Amino acid sequence: MDTCAKISDYMRESGYECRVMGVPKTIDNDVMGTDHTPGYASAAKYVATSRMELFEDASVYDTGSVCVVEVMGRHAGWLTMAAHAATASGKGPDLIYLPERDFDVEVFLKKVKEVFDTRGNCLVAVSEGIHDKDGKLIAEYSASAASDAFGHKQLGGLAAILAQMVKDRYPGTKVRPIELSLLQRCAAHFASPVDCEEAFLAGKTAVEKAIEGESDKMIAIIRDTDENGNYSPRFEPVDLWVAANTEKPVPQEWINEEGNGLNDKCLNYLLPLFGGQKQLVLENGMPRFAKLKKIKAE
Amino acid sequence: MDTCAKISDYMRESGYECRVMGVPKTIDNDVMGTDHTPGYASAAKYVATSRMELFEDASVYDTGSVCVVEVMGRHAGWLTMAAHAATASGKGPDLIYLPERDFDVEVFLKKVKEVFDTRGNCLVAVSEGIHDKDGKLIAEYSASAASDAFGHKQLGGLAAILAQMVKDRYPGTKVRPIELSLLQRCAAHFASPVDCEEAFLAGKTAVEKAIEGESDKMIAIIRDTDENGNYSPRFEPVDLWVAANTEKPVPQEWINEEGNGLNDKCLNYLLPLFGGQKQLVLENGMPRFAKLKKIKAE
Repeated sequence: MDTCAKISDYMRESGYECRVMGVPKTIDNDVMGTDHTPGYASAAKYVATSRMELFEDASVYDTGSVCVVEVMGRHAGWLTMAAHAATASGKGPDLIYLPERDFDVEVFLKKVKEVFDTRGNCLVAVSEGIHDKDGKLIAEYSASAASDAFGHKQLGGLAAILAQMVKDRYPGTKVRPIELSLLQRCAAHFASPVDCEEAFLAGKTAVEKAIEGESDKMIAIIRDTDENGNYSPRFEPVDLWVAANTEKPVPQEWINEEGNGLNDKCLNYLLPLFGGQKQLVLENGMPRFAKLKKIKAE
Repeated sequence: MDTCAKISDYMRESGYECRVMGVPKTIDNDVMGTDHTPGYASAAKYVATSRMELFEDASVYDTGSVCVVEVMGRHAGWLTMAAHAATASGKGPDLIYLPERDFDVEVFLKKVKEVFDTRGNCLVAVSEGIHDKDGKLIAEYSASAASDAFGHKQLGGLAAILAQMVKDRYPGTKVRPIELSLLQRCAAHFASPVDCEEAFLAGKTAVEKAIEGESDKMIAIIRDTDENGNYSPRFEPVDLWVAANTEKPVPQEWINEEGNGLNDKCLNYLLPLFGGQKQLVLENGMPRFAKLKKIKAE
């Protein structure tokens, strides 16, 4: 959205008439001014479902284990929060840590043992961006970190670092780190149909509003509830500056006191976005992806 | 199957009448005496589909990258081979390495550069069990390896090791290791309907044959082709000893000369097993898993 605003400024200064509309899209869901962003619901649904499946996987063994799963999200824990939908159904991580709260390694290690001793397994979900009270990323406790093109730190390896800490503290415990990595953002085979439709409508609305003469707006998704209590989205242009350069965090009141889980307030937000099962177009049993061809102007 | 044979021997020696039937199940697909094993088709379909999605993910960037994906399979490359279904559709890894061939790090590093220079990206799939010509696992080139309960080495970290080698040789290249880890064996949300039906029928046949008086058999899946050329499985008991203690490798003639890819002979084997889209029972947009309750005998 910041880039949209800059392009618009540049066009205006250059005297080139151009209407600029921002269409939000990020699995991180950290954009201000919109209830949620296209892309988020599909990734969140994948995270929640994978966590249920990892729960089932862990529960077939006699020997318990600790499994630390790293989820994307630099400064906001929206995607990691989605794991709570699995927890609420009885098949999710025992501990969920978001960057909205400070992370204390000692408290974490004690909690892992407490859960493991009680339940025989301990499943953990962590946002890649969790940090200590001094703001230092836990992912930087050992590994070196490179930077991407936007100057963001390239995170990764957090799950491995935490898993090693658990192994060192409790020798002999079976510990497995899992990084959902790119899989969580490209798992189109399990996309939310609600998300797919909203993504299309957000783009459509942007084009319609631009044709009507609007500019320097972002298309926000407004959450409405119909007379039967059902989720119903609306698409409205809001000023670009509302969204530019501020990240939206998970509300503090959705996070439990210990900072290692969510309460059910987040379910009302999450569940209507998951939708049912998307019917896929398959070819040889695998999804067929549309391809937009580049056509060179004559 | 080896355990089935031992149980049967023990029962006979103890004079306890018991009919023992083995029902194969492993995503590794490395069991002799059966065309394939329940579990394999679903995991293979997930591996192929994830590779297509990772291809799409990589293709949206101007900056190319090298992505090394580690797939399960200690001594047999069946699961990694499944990535070829994505490659054959034009959206898969450029290089696929199975443990059925020796792996040479130098040759690999040169090949990665060749592909990257030609195509602007280089996507790699490796079996966790790839080894050099002396039989040493590439995964052991740096990391230490623990052992699981069966004395198998606990592998892992191979993708990270190979990615580091590529980074060291070609500094400045964007390289990402991804381990499909447990996700590839528990992604029930994208199971093959063919696999689910076959798993049920294999178990049903085992019970029926035991009731008929058979023992010391494994239920094998025999691949038939009907008059229209369509895949049609049959379930037959075969002697347990056929399957016990020998692992079935991917046929050498399905692997290309360079040992870095498959030819299309493996597609005839793979594609009929993928089936269409499994219709899921959802609850809150997430899969509902059946639970068999333990009932204590009075």
